[in-house]
Amino acid sequence: MKNSSIADKPIGIFDSGIGGLTVLKEIHRLLPAESTIYLGDTARVPYGIRSSETVRKYSLQNSMFLMERGIKLLIIACNTSSATSLESIRNVLDIPVLGVIEPGAKAAAATTRNNRVGVIGTEATIKSGAYRKAIQNVNRSIEVIEKSCPLFVPLVEEGWLNDDITELTARRYLQEVKDAGIDTLVLGCTHYPLLKDVIKKVMGEQTVLIDSAIEKAKVVKQILTDLRILKKDTNGTFRKYYVTDSTDRFLTVARRFLLEPIEDITTIEIASLEMAT
Amino acid sequence: MKNSSIADKPIGIFDSGIGGLTVLKEIHRLLPAESTIYLGDTARVPYGIRSSETVRKYSLQNSMFLMERGIKLLIIACNTSSATSLESIRNVLDIPVLGVIEPGAKAAAATTRNNRVGVIGTEATIKSGAYRKAIQNVNRSIEVIEKSCPLFVPLVEEGWLNDDITELTARRYLQEVKDAGIDTLVLGCTHYPLLKDVIKKVMGEQTVLIDSAIEKAKVVKQILTDLRILKKDTNGTFRKYYVTDSTDRFLTVARRFLLEPIEDITTIEIASLEMAT
Repeated sequence: MKNSSIADKPIGIFDSGIGGLTVLKEIHRLLPAESTIYLGDTARVPYGIRSSETVRKYSLQNSMFLMERGIKLLIIACNTSSATSLESIRNVLDIPVLGVIEPGAKAAAATTRNNRVGVIGTEATIKSGAYRKAIQNVNRSIEVIEKSCPLFVPLVEEGWLNDDITELTARRYLQEVKDAGIDTLVLGCTHYPLLKDVIKKVMGEQTVLIDSAIEKAKVVKQILTDLRILKKDTNGTFRKYYVTDSTDRFLTVARRFLLEPIEDITTIEIASLEMAT
Repeated sequence: MKNSSIADKPIGIFDSGIGGLTVLKEIHRLLPAESTIYLGDTARVPYGIRSSETVRKYSLQNSMFLMERGIKLLIIACNTSSATSLESIRNVLDIPVLGVIEPGAKAAAATTRNNRVGVIGTEATIKSGAYRKAIQNVNRSIEVIEKSCPLFVPLVEEGWLNDDITELTARRYLQEVKDAGIDTLVLGCTHYPLLKDVIKKVMGEQTVLIDSAIEKAKVVKQILTDLRILKKDTNGTFRKYYVTDSTDRFLTVARRFLLEPIEDITTIEIASLEMAT
Protein backbone atom coordinates (compact mmCIF):
# COMPACT_ATOMS: atom_id res chain seq x y z
CA MET A 1 0.00 0.00 0.00
CA LYS A 2 1.26 3.47 -0.83
CA ASN A 3 2.10 5.69 2.09
CA SER A 4 -0.52 8.19 0.93
CA SER A 5 -3.36 5.69 1.34
CA ILE A 6 -1.99 4.46 4.67
CA ALA A 7 -1.90 8.11 5.74
CA ASP A 8 -5.65 8.36 5.17
CA LYS A 9 -6.36 5.49 7.55
CA PRO A 10 -7.62 6.30 11.04
CA ILE A 11 -5.75 6.25 14.32
CA GLY A 12 -7.24 3.70 16.72
CA ILE A 13 -7.46 4.51 20.40
CA PHE A 14 -8.98 2.54 23.23
CA ASP A 15 -9.60 3.07 26.89
CA SER A 16 -11.40 1.15 29.61
CA GLY A 17 -14.07 3.82 29.44
CA ILE A 18 -14.27 7.55 29.19
CA GLY A 19 -10.90 8.71 30.49
CA GLY A 20 -9.10 8.13 27.20
CA LEU A 21 -10.99 11.09 25.79
CA THR A 22 -8.37 13.30 27.49
CA VAL A 23 -5.82 11.71 25.14
CA LEU A 24 -8.15 11.94 22.14
CA LYS A 25 -8.72 15.62 22.82
CA GLU A 26 -4.96 16.27 22.59
CA ILE A 27 -4.74 14.22 19.37
CA HIS A 28 -7.55 16.27 17.82
CA ARG A 29 -5.90 19.48 18.96
CA LEU A 30 -2.42 18.60 17.70
CA LEU A 31 -3.46 16.61 14.60
CA PRO A 32 -6.83 17.95 13.41
CA ALA A 33 -6.59 16.27 9.99
CA GLU A 34 -6.35 12.75 11.39
CA SER A 35 -9.33 10.40 11.40
CA THR A 36 -9.83 8.64 14.73
CA ILE A 37 -11.73 5.62 16.00
CA TYR A 38 -12.24 5.55 19.76
CA LEU A 39 -13.32 2.44 21.66
CA GLY A 40 -14.48 2.82 25.27
CA ASP A 41 -15.04 -0.52 27.02
CA THR A 42 -17.83 0.89 29.19
CA ALA A 43 -19.39 -2.53 29.84
CA ARG A 44 -16.26 -3.67 31.71
CA VAL A 45 -14.85 -0.42 33.10
CA PRO A 46 -12.93 0.13 35.42
CA TYR A 47 -9.78 -1.85 34.62
CA GLY A 48 -7.80 -0.39 37.53
CA ILE A 49 -9.32 -2.76 40.10
CA ARG A 50 -8.81 -5.95 38.05
CA SER A 51 -6.00 -8.48 37.84
CA SER A 52 -3.33 -8.01 35.18
CA GLU A 53 -4.43 -11.22 33.41
CA THR A 54 -7.98 -9.95 33.01
CA VAL A 55 -6.83 -6.50 31.90
CA ARG A 56 -4.55 -8.13 29.34
CA LYS A 57 -7.39 -10.23 27.93
CA TYR A 58 -9.70 -7.23 27.64
CA SER A 59 -6.95 -5.06 26.13
CA LEU A 60 -6.11 -7.63 23.45
CA GLN A 61 -9.78 -7.89 22.51
CA ASN A 62 -10.06 -4.12 22.18
CA SER A 63 -6.89 -3.96 20.05
CA MET A 64 -8.11 -6.64 17.64
CA PHE A 65 -11.47 -4.93 17.27
CA LEU A 66 -9.74 -1.71 16.19
CA MET A 67 -7.28 -3.57 13.93
CA GLU A 68 -10.21 -5.02 12.01
CA ARG A 69 -11.34 -1.45 11.31
CA GLY A 70 -8.12 -0.75 9.38
CA ILE A 71 -6.21 1.58 11.72
CA LYS A 72 -2.67 2.71 10.93
CA LEU A 73 -1.55 3.22 14.54
CA LEU A 74 -2.91 2.10 17.90
CA ILE A 75 -2.92 4.22 21.03
CA ILE A 76 -3.57 2.54 24.35
CA ALA A 77 -5.04 5.48 26.23
CA CYS A 78 -5.66 3.52 29.43
CA ASN A 79 -2.74 3.61 31.87
CA THR A 80 -3.75 0.29 33.41
CA SER A 81 -3.79 -1.39 29.98
CA SER A 82 -0.49 0.23 29.03
CA ALA A 83 1.12 -0.86 32.28
CA THR A 84 0.06 -4.49 31.96
CA SER A 85 -0.54 -5.24 28.28
CA LEU A 86 1.63 -3.13 25.96
CA GLU A 87 4.14 -5.88 25.20
CA SER A 88 1.47 -8.53 24.62
CA ILE A 89 -0.31 -6.25 22.15
CA ARG A 90 2.89 -5.29 20.32
CA ASN A 91 3.63 -8.99 19.93
CA VAL A 92 0.47 -9.60 17.90
CA LEU A 93 0.01 -6.34 15.93
CA ASP A 94 2.05 -5.28 12.88
CA ILE A 95 1.38 -1.54 13.25
CA PRO A 96 2.95 0.95 15.70
CA VAL A 97 1.44 0.58 19.17
CA LEU A 98 1.82 3.41 21.64
CA GLY A 99 1.24 3.05 25.35
CA VAL A 100 0.89 5.91 27.76
CA ILE A 101 3.61 4.97 30.24
CA GLU A 102 6.75 5.68 28.23
CA PRO A 103 5.94 9.25 27.10
CA GLY A 104 4.93 10.17 30.66
CA ALA A 105 8.00 8.50 32.16
CA LYS A 106 10.39 10.24 29.73
CA ALA A 107 8.80 13.63 30.35
CA ALA A 108 9.09 13.09 34.12
CA ALA A 109 12.73 12.05 33.90
CA ALA A 110 13.48 15.13 31.78
CA THR A 111 11.63 17.42 34.18
CA THR A 112 12.86 16.48 37.64
CA ARG A 113 15.71 18.55 39.07
CA ASN A 114 16.09 16.78 42.41
CA ASN A 115 15.67 13.25 40.99
CA ARG A 116 12.57 12.56 43.07
CA VAL A 117 9.46 11.78 41.05
CA GLY A 118 5.99 10.87 42.30
CA VAL A 119 3.56 8.69 40.34
CA ILE A 120 -0.15 8.37 41.10
CA GLY A 121 -2.52 5.93 39.37
CA THR A 122 -5.00 3.09 39.83
CA GLU A 123 -4.28 0.09 42.02
CA ALA A 124 -3.37 -2.08 38.99
CA THR A 125 -1.08 0.54 37.45
CA ILE A 126 0.81 1.18 40.69
CA LYS A 127 1.00 -2.53 41.48
CA SER A 128 2.60 -3.16 38.08
CA GLY A 129 5.49 -0.80 38.87
CA ALA A 130 5.50 0.11 35.15
CA TYR A 131 6.15 3.82 35.66
CA ARG A 132 8.96 3.23 38.14
CA LYS A 133 10.68 0.83 35.72
CA ALA A 134 10.19 3.17 32.74
CA ILE A 135 11.51 6.21 34.65
CA GLN A 136 14.51 4.32 36.00
CA ASN A 137 15.19 2.99 32.49
CA VAL A 138 15.88 6.61 31.53
CA ASN A 139 17.80 7.48 34.68
CA ARG A 140 18.61 4.86 37.27
CA SER A 141 19.33 7.43 39.99
CA ILE A 142 15.80 8.83 40.07
CA GLU A 143 13.85 7.82 43.14
CA VAL A 144 10.20 7.07 42.32
CA ILE A 145 7.47 7.32 44.96
CA GLU A 146 4.27 5.57 43.87
CA LYS A 147 0.77 5.87 45.32
CA SER A 148 -2.55 4.47 44.17
CA CYS A 149 -5.59 6.77 44.51
CA PRO A 150 -8.64 4.51 44.01
CA LEU A 151 -11.24 7.19 44.78
CA PHE A 152 -10.01 9.70 42.19
CA VAL A 153 -11.78 7.96 39.27
CA PRO A 154 -15.22 7.76 40.95
CA LEU A 155 -14.82 11.36 42.16
CA VAL A 156 -14.19 12.54 38.59
CA GLU A 157 -17.09 10.47 37.24
CA GLU A 158 -19.32 12.01 39.92
CA GLY A 159 -18.23 15.42 38.60
CA TRP A 160 -16.81 16.61 41.95
CA LEU A 161 -13.80 18.29 40.36
CA ASN A 162 -13.20 21.47 42.38
CA ASP A 163 -14.69 20.23 45.59
CA ASP A 164 -13.84 20.16 49.28
CA ILE A 165 -14.40 16.39 49.60
CA THR A 166 -12.11 15.80 46.62
CA GLU A 167 -9.50 18.08 48.18
CA LEU A 168 -9.62 16.22 51.50
CA THR A 169 -9.26 12.93 49.65
CA ALA A 170 -6.32 14.30 47.67
CA ARG A 171 -4.66 15.54 50.89
CA ARG A 172 -4.89 12.07 52.40
CA TYR A 173 -3.59 10.24 49.32
CA LEU A 174 -0.83 12.70 48.47
CA GLN A 175 0.61 13.32 51.95
CA GLU A 176 3.30 10.64 51.72
CA VAL A 177 4.20 11.67 48.15
CA LYS A 178 4.52 15.25 49.32
CA ASP A 179 6.54 14.29 52.40
CA ALA A 180 8.98 12.47 50.12
CA GLY A 181 10.01 15.85 48.69
CA ILE A 182 9.26 15.17 45.01
CA ASP A 183 9.46 18.02 42.48
CA THR A 184 7.59 16.19 39.67
CA LEU A 185 4.32 14.24 39.81
CA VAL A 186 3.08 11.97 37.01
CA LEU A 187 -0.71 11.88 36.64
CA GLY A 188 -0.74 8.19 35.75
CA CYS A 189 -4.43 7.83 34.94
CA THR A 190 -6.46 9.48 32.20
CA HIS A 191 -9.02 10.75 34.72
CA TYR A 192 -6.53 12.65 36.84
CA PRO A 193 -5.91 15.67 34.59
CA LEU A 194 -9.46 16.73 35.49
CA LEU A 195 -8.27 17.02 39.11
CA LYS A 196 -5.28 19.18 38.20
CA ASP A 197 -6.50 22.21 40.15
CA VAL A 198 -7.07 20.25 43.35
CA ILE A 199 -3.81 18.31 43.02
CA LYS A 200 -1.88 21.55 42.38
CA LYS A 201 -3.47 23.11 45.45
CA VAL A 202 -2.45 20.16 47.62
CA MET A 203 1.05 19.69 46.19
CA GLY A 204 1.92 23.38 45.88
CA GLU A 205 2.78 25.41 42.79
CA GLN A 206 6.43 24.30 42.75
CA THR A 207 5.57 20.65 41.90
CA VAL A 208 5.39 20.05 38.13
CA LEU A 209 2.46 17.86 37.07
CA ILE A 210 3.08 15.57 34.08
CA ASP A 211 -0.08 15.02 32.04
CA SER A 212 0.62 11.95 29.96
CA ALA A 213 -2.23 12.78 27.54
CA ILE A 214 -0.34 15.79 26.20
CA GLU A 215 2.97 13.90 26.12
CA LYS A 216 1.39 11.06 24.20
CA ALA A 217 -0.15 13.29 21.52
CA LYS A 218 3.31 14.74 20.85
CA VAL A 219 4.77 11.26 20.40
CA VAL A 220 1.97 10.27 18.03
CA LYS A 221 2.73 13.26 15.82
CA GLN A 222 6.43 12.37 15.85
CA ILE A 223 5.81 8.73 14.88
CA LEU A 224 3.42 9.61 12.05
CA THR A 225 5.91 12.16 10.77
CA ASP A 226 8.83 9.73 10.94
CA LEU A 227 6.82 7.05 9.11
CA ARG A 228 5.53 9.64 6.59
CA ILE A 229 1.93 8.63 7.22
CA LEU A 230 0.71 11.92 8.62
CA LYS A 231 -2.66 12.77 7.04
CA LYS A 232 -2.27 15.89 4.87
CA ASP A 233 -5.65 17.65 5.09
CA THR A 234 -9.14 17.31 6.52
CA ASN A 235 -10.64 15.81 3.32
CA GLY A 236 -12.62 12.77 4.45
CA THR A 237 -11.55 13.14 8.08
CA PHE A 238 -13.92 11.31 10.43
CA ARG A 239 -14.23 10.74 14.18
CA LYS A 240 -15.96 7.55 15.18
CA TYR A 241 -16.82 6.28 18.65
CA TYR A 242 -17.64 2.78 19.87
CA VAL A 243 -18.75 1.81 23.37
CA THR A 244 -19.61 -1.61 24.79
CA ASP A 245 -22.44 -0.43 27.04
CA SER A 246 -25.26 1.96 26.17
CA THR A 247 -24.27 5.42 25.06
CA ASP A 248 -26.29 7.49 27.60
CA ARG A 249 -23.85 7.60 30.49
CA PHE A 250 -20.87 7.84 28.14
CA LEU A 251 -22.28 10.93 26.45
CA THR A 252 -23.08 12.56 29.79
CA VAL A 253 -19.64 12.10 31.31
CA ALA A 254 -17.83 12.53 27.98
CA ARG A 255 -18.76 16.21 27.93
CA ARG A 256 -16.49 16.76 30.92
CA PHE A 257 -13.55 15.25 29.05
CA LEU A 258 -13.80 16.05 25.37
CA LEU A 259 -15.53 19.44 25.22
CA GLU A 260 -16.57 18.78 21.60
CA PRO A 261 -19.73 17.13 20.25
CA ILE A 262 -19.77 13.35 19.71
CA GLU A 263 -21.84 12.59 16.62
CA ASP A 264 -21.00 9.12 15.32
CA ILE A 265 -21.32 6.69 18.24
CA THR A 266 -22.22 2.99 18.17
CA THR A 267 -22.78 0.41 20.91
CA ILE A 268 -21.15 -2.95 20.22
CA GLU A 269 -21.62 -6.30 21.96
CA ILE A 270 -18.83 -7.61 24.19
CA ALA A 271 -19.27 -10.92 22.36
CA SER A 272 -18.07 -9.27 19.15
CA LEU A 273 -14.92 -8.14 20.97
CA GLU A 274 -14.28 -11.67 22.14
CA MET A 275 -14.67 -13.01 18.62
CA ALA A 276 -12.07 -10.48 17.48
CA THR A 277 -9.30 -12.43 19.24
CA MET B 1 -36.58 -36.18 43.10
CA LYS B 2 -37.46 -36.68 46.76
CA ASN B 3 -37.64 -33.56 48.88
CA SER B 4 -34.89 -34.92 51.11
CA SER B 5 -32.37 -35.00 48.27
CA ILE B 6 -33.48 -31.60 47.00
CA ALA B 7 -32.96 -30.34 50.54
CA ASP B 8 -29.31 -31.34 50.39
CA LYS B 9 -28.68 -29.24 47.30
CA PRO B 10 -26.94 -25.91 47.71
CA ILE B 11 -28.39 -22.42 47.67
CA GLY B 12 -26.95 -20.37 44.80
CA ILE B 13 -26.21 -16.72 45.34
CA PHE B 14 -24.61 -14.22 43.01
CA ASP B 15 -23.51 -10.63 43.19
CA SER B 16 -21.67 -8.25 40.90
CA GLY B 17 -18.73 -8.61 43.25
CA ILE B 18 -18.08 -8.71 46.95
CA GLY B 19 -21.12 -6.93 48.41
CA GLY B 20 -23.35 -10.00 48.27
CA LEU B 21 -21.27 -11.46 51.07
CA THR B 22 -23.38 -9.33 53.45
CA VAL B 23 -26.36 -11.44 52.35
CA LEU B 24 -24.38 -14.67 52.51
CA LYS B 25 -23.28 -13.89 56.05
CA GLU B 26 -26.91 -13.62 57.15
CA ILE B 27 -27.78 -16.88 55.35
CA HIS B 28 -24.93 -18.66 57.15
CA ARG B 29 -26.02 -17.17 60.46
CA LEU B 30 -29.71 -18.03 60.10
CA LEU B 31 -29.31 -21.32 58.19
CA PRO B 32 -25.96 -22.85 59.21
CA ALA B 33 -26.81 -26.29 57.81
CA GLU B 34 -27.33 -25.05 54.24
CA SER B 35 -24.69 -25.54 51.57
CA THR B 36 -24.02 -22.40 49.54
CA ILE B 37 -22.38 -21.53 46.24
CA TYR B 38 -21.43 -17.88 45.85
CA LEU B 39 -20.53 -16.31 42.51
CA GLY B 40 -18.92 -12.85 42.50
CA ASP B 41 -18.57 -11.37 39.01
CA THR B 42 -15.40 -9.50 39.92
CA ALA B 43 -14.21 -9.23 36.30
CA ARG B 44 -17.22 -7.06 35.41
CA VAL B 45 -18.04 -5.31 38.69
CA PRO B 46 -19.58 -2.77 39.31
CA TYR B 47 -23.03 -3.27 37.79
CA GLY B 48 -24.46 -0.06 39.27
CA ILE B 49 -22.95 2.17 36.58
CA ARG B 50 -24.10 0.04 33.61
CA SER B 51 -27.21 0.07 31.44
CA SER B 52 -30.09 -2.22 32.39
CA GLU B 53 -29.61 -4.28 29.20
CA THR B 54 -26.00 -5.04 30.07
CA VAL B 55 -26.85 -5.82 33.71
CA ARG B 56 -29.61 -8.17 32.53
CA LYS B 57 -27.23 -10.03 30.22
CA TYR B 58 -24.61 -10.45 32.94
CA SER B 59 -27.23 -11.49 35.52
CA LEU B 60 -28.69 -14.17 33.26
CA GLN B 61 -25.23 -15.57 32.63
CA ASN B 62 -24.51 -15.73 36.35
CA SER B 63 -27.86 -17.44 37.02
CA MET B 64 -27.30 -20.12 34.39
CA PHE B 65 -23.81 -20.81 35.72
CA LEU B 66 -25.23 -21.49 39.19
CA MET B 67 -28.16 -23.52 37.80
CA GLU B 68 -25.68 -25.87 36.14
CA ARG B 69 -24.20 -26.50 39.59
CA GLY B 70 -27.52 -27.97 40.80
CA ILE B 71 -28.82 -25.29 43.15
CA LYS B 72 -32.28 -25.58 44.75
CA LEU B 73 -32.87 -21.84 45.14
CA LEU B 74 -31.28 -18.75 43.64
CA ILE B 75 -30.63 -15.53 45.52
CA ILE B 76 -29.81 -12.41 43.56
CA ALA B 77 -27.77 -10.58 46.16
CA CYS B 78 -27.04 -7.59 43.95
CA ASN B 79 -29.63 -4.81 44.21
CA THR B 80 -28.86 -3.58 40.70
CA SER B 81 -29.43 -7.07 39.26
CA SER B 82 -32.59 -7.53 41.33
CA ALA B 83 -33.94 -4.16 40.22
CA THR B 84 -33.38 -4.81 36.52
CA SER B 85 -33.33 -8.57 35.94
CA LEU B 86 -35.47 -10.48 38.46
CA GLU B 87 -38.37 -11.08 36.08
CA SER B 88 -36.14 -12.12 33.16
CA ILE B 89 -34.39 -14.65 35.39
CA ARG B 90 -37.64 -16.02 36.84
CA ASN B 91 -38.86 -16.52 33.28
CA VAL B 92 -36.07 -18.95 32.45
CA LEU B 93 -35.44 -20.77 35.76
CA ASP B 94 -37.66 -23.47 37.26
CA ILE B 95 -36.49 -22.99 40.86
CA PRO B 96 -37.45 -20.25 43.35
CA VAL B 97 -35.60 -17.03 42.57
CA LEU B 98 -35.34 -14.39 45.25
CA GLY B 99 -34.37 -10.80 44.56
CA VAL B 100 -33.39 -8.30 47.21
CA ILE B 101 -35.91 -5.56 46.40
CA GLU B 102 -39.14 -7.13 47.61
CA PRO B 103 -38.02 -8.14 51.12
CA GLY B 104 -36.51 -4.71 51.69
CA ALA B 105 -39.56 -2.93 50.29
CA LYS B 106 -41.97 -4.95 52.45
CA ALA B 107 -39.91 -4.34 55.57
CA ALA B 108 -39.82 -0.62 54.82
CA ALA B 109 -43.58 -0.44 54.23
CA ALA B 110 -44.18 -2.27 57.51
CA THR B 111 -41.78 -0.01 59.42
CA THR B 112 -42.71 3.54 58.38
CA ARG B 113 -45.09 5.42 60.67
CA ASN B 114 -45.30 8.67 58.71
CA ASN B 115 -45.50 7.03 55.26
CA ARG B 116 -42.29 8.67 54.10
CA VAL B 117 -39.54 6.23 53.10
CA GLY B 118 -36.10 6.99 51.70
CA VAL B 119 -34.20 4.63 49.40
CA ILE B 120 -30.50 4.90 48.59
CA GLY B 121 -28.67 2.77 46.01
CA THR B 122 -26.53 2.77 42.89
CA GLU B 123 -27.35 4.86 39.84
CA ALA B 124 -28.86 1.88 38.00
CA THR B 125 -30.98 0.76 40.98
CA ILE B 126 -32.38 4.23 41.61
CA LYS B 127 -32.94 4.85 37.90
CA SER B 128 -35.00 1.64 37.69
CA GLY B 129 -37.45 2.90 40.32
CA ALA B 130 -37.80 -0.73 41.46
CA TYR B 131 -37.91 0.05 45.20
CA ARG B 132 -40.47 2.83 44.75
CA LYS B 133 -42.73 0.52 42.75
CA ALA B 134 -42.34 -2.37 45.22
CA ILE B 135 -43.02 -0.15 48.26
CA GLN B 136 -46.06 1.45 46.64
CA ASN B 137 -47.30 -2.01 45.65
CA VAL B 138 -47.64 -2.67 49.37
CA ASN B 139 -49.05 0.74 50.25
CA ARG B 140 -49.87 3.25 47.55
CA SER B 141 -49.94 6.17 50.00
CA ILE B 142 -46.29 5.89 50.97
CA GLU B 143 -44.11 8.63 49.53
CA VAL B 144 -40.71 7.33 48.42
CA ILE B 145 -37.68 9.62 48.18
CA GLU B 146 -34.87 8.03 46.14
CA LYS B 147 -31.22 9.07 45.93
CA SER B 148 -28.24 7.44 44.24
CA CYS B 149 -24.94 7.52 46.13
CA PRO B 150 -22.27 6.53 43.58
CA LEU B 151 -19.28 7.12 45.87
CA PHE B 152 -20.47 4.83 48.69
CA VAL B 153 -19.30 1.63 46.95
CA PRO B 154 -15.74 2.85 46.23
CA LEU B 155 -15.54 4.29 49.78
CA VAL B 156 -16.43 0.89 51.26
CA GLU B 157 -14.01 -0.90 48.94
CA GLU B 158 -11.30 1.55 50.04
CA GLY B 159 -12.09 0.57 53.63
CA TRP B 160 -12.96 4.11 54.75
CA LEU B 161 -15.89 3.01 56.88
CA ASN B 162 -15.85 5.25 59.95
CA ASP B 163 -14.16 8.17 58.37
CA ASP B 164 -14.60 11.93 58.13
CA ILE B 165 -14.46 11.98 54.32
CA THR B 166 -17.15 9.30 54.18
CA GLU B 167 -19.25 11.26 56.64
CA LEU B 168 -18.97 14.46 54.56
CA THR B 169 -19.95 12.49 51.46
CA ALA B 170 -22.92 10.97 53.30
CA ARG B 171 -24.03 14.42 54.50
CA ARG B 172 -24.05 15.71 50.95
CA TYR B 173 -25.91 12.72 49.48
CA LEU B 174 -28.43 12.36 52.30
CA GLN B 175 -29.36 16.01 52.84
CA GLU B 176 -32.38 15.97 50.52
CA VAL B 177 -33.55 12.59 51.87
CA LYS B 178 -33.28 13.99 55.39
CA ASP B 179 -35.03 17.24 54.46
CA ALA B 180 -37.94 15.19 53.10
CA GLY B 181 -38.69 14.08 56.68
CA ILE B 182 -38.46 10.32 56.15
CA ASP B 183 -38.60 7.99 59.17
CA THR B 184 -37.31 4.88 57.34
CA LEU B 185 -34.31 4.50 55.02
CA VAL B 186 -33.71 1.44 52.82
CA LEU B 187 -30.02 0.61 52.31
CA GLY B 188 -30.57 -0.47 48.71
CA CYS B 189 -27.07 -1.74 47.96
CA THR B 190 -25.18 -4.62 49.56
CA HIS B 191 -22.22 -2.38 50.33
CA TYR B 192 -24.17 0.14 52.36
CA PRO B 193 -24.68 -1.86 55.59
CA LEU B 194 -20.94 -1.35 56.16
CA LEU B 195 -21.63 2.39 56.35
CA LYS B 196 -24.44 1.98 58.90
CA ASP B 197 -22.63 3.93 61.64
CA VAL B 198 -21.94 6.92 59.41
CA ILE B 199 -25.44 6.90 57.90
CA LYS B 200 -27.01 6.67 61.36
CA LYS B 201 -24.89 9.59 62.52
CA VAL B 202 -26.02 11.71 59.57
CA MET B 203 -29.70 10.69 59.59
CA GLY B 204 -30.11 10.69 63.37
CA GLU B 205 -31.09 7.86 65.71
CA GLN B 206 -34.83 8.20 65.02
CA THR B 207 -34.52 7.06 61.38
CA VAL B 208 -34.86 3.27 61.00
CA LEU B 209 -32.36 1.74 58.58
CA ILE B 210 -33.61 -1.26 56.58
CA ASP B 211 -30.81 -3.69 55.81
CA SER B 212 -32.11 -5.83 52.98
CA ALA B 213 -29.49 -8.54 53.65
CA ILE B 214 -31.13 -9.45 56.95
CA GLU B 215 -34.63 -9.26 55.47
CA LYS B 216 -33.66 -11.51 52.61
CA ALA B 217 -32.17 -14.22 54.81
CA LYS B 218 -35.48 -14.39 56.69
CA VAL B 219 -37.41 -14.84 53.45
CA VAL B 220 -35.05 -17.59 52.31
CA LYS B 221 -35.68 -19.51 55.52
CA GLN B 222 -39.43 -19.08 55.06
CA ILE B 223 -39.39 -20.31 51.45
CA LEU B 224 -37.25 -23.35 52.23
CA THR B 225 -39.54 -24.18 55.16
CA ASP B 226 -42.69 -23.77 53.06
CA LEU B 227 -41.28 -25.98 50.30
CA ARG B 228 -39.98 -28.50 52.88
CA ILE B 229 -36.49 -28.35 51.40
CA LEU B 230 -34.70 -26.96 54.44
CA LYS B 231 -31.47 -28.90 54.99
CA LYS B 232 -31.70 -30.87 58.27
CA ASP B 233 -28.14 -30.98 59.59
CA THR B 234 -24.58 -30.01 58.76
CA ASN B 235 -23.67 -33.42 57.29
CA GLY B 236 -21.98 -32.72 53.98
CA THR B 237 -22.54 -28.97 54.23
CA PHE B 238 -20.17 -27.05 51.98
CA ARG B 239 -19.48 -23.41 51.13
CA LYS B 240 -18.08 -22.80 47.70
CA TYR B 241 -16.96 -19.52 46.11
CA TYR B 242 -16.45 -18.59 42.46
CA VAL B 243 -15.08 -15.32 41.13
CA THR B 244 -14.50 -14.20 37.54
CA ASP B 245 -11.29 -12.28 38.23
CA SER B 246 -8.31 -13.36 40.32
CA THR B 247 -8.98 -14.16 43.96
CA ASP B 248 -6.43 -11.78 45.58
CA ARG B 249 -8.48 -8.61 45.78
CA PHE B 250 -11.67 -10.54 46.53
CA LEU B 251 -10.08 -12.23 49.53
CA THR B 252 -8.69 -8.93 50.85
CA VAL B 253 -11.96 -7.02 50.69
CA ALA B 254 -14.10 -10.07 51.57
CA ARG B 255 -12.69 -10.03 55.10
CA ARG B 256 -14.54 -6.77 55.72
CA PHE B 257 -17.83 -8.34 54.68
CA LEU B 258 -17.91 -11.97 55.72
CA LEU B 259 -15.81 -12.19 58.86
CA GLU B 260 -15.29 -15.94 58.31
CA PRO B 261 -12.54 -17.73 56.40
CA ILE B 262 -13.02 -18.48 52.69
CA GLU B 263 -11.45 -21.84 51.89
CA ASP B 264 -12.89 -23.20 48.65
CA ILE B 265 -12.52 -20.49 46.03
CA THR B 266 -12.10 -20.85 42.24
CA THR B 267 -11.55 -18.36 39.43
CA ILE B 268 -13.67 -19.01 36.34
CA GLU B 269 -13.42 -17.51 32.85
CA ILE B 270 -16.08 -15.04 31.72
CA ALA B 271 -16.26 -17.09 28.53
CA SER B 272 -17.61 -20.03 30.53
CA LEU B 273 -20.36 -17.76 31.90
CA GLU B 274 -21.31 -16.73 28.40
CA MET B 275 -21.51 -20.33 27.29
CA ALA B 276 -23.87 -21.00 30.17
CA THR B 277 -26.63 -18.99 28.46
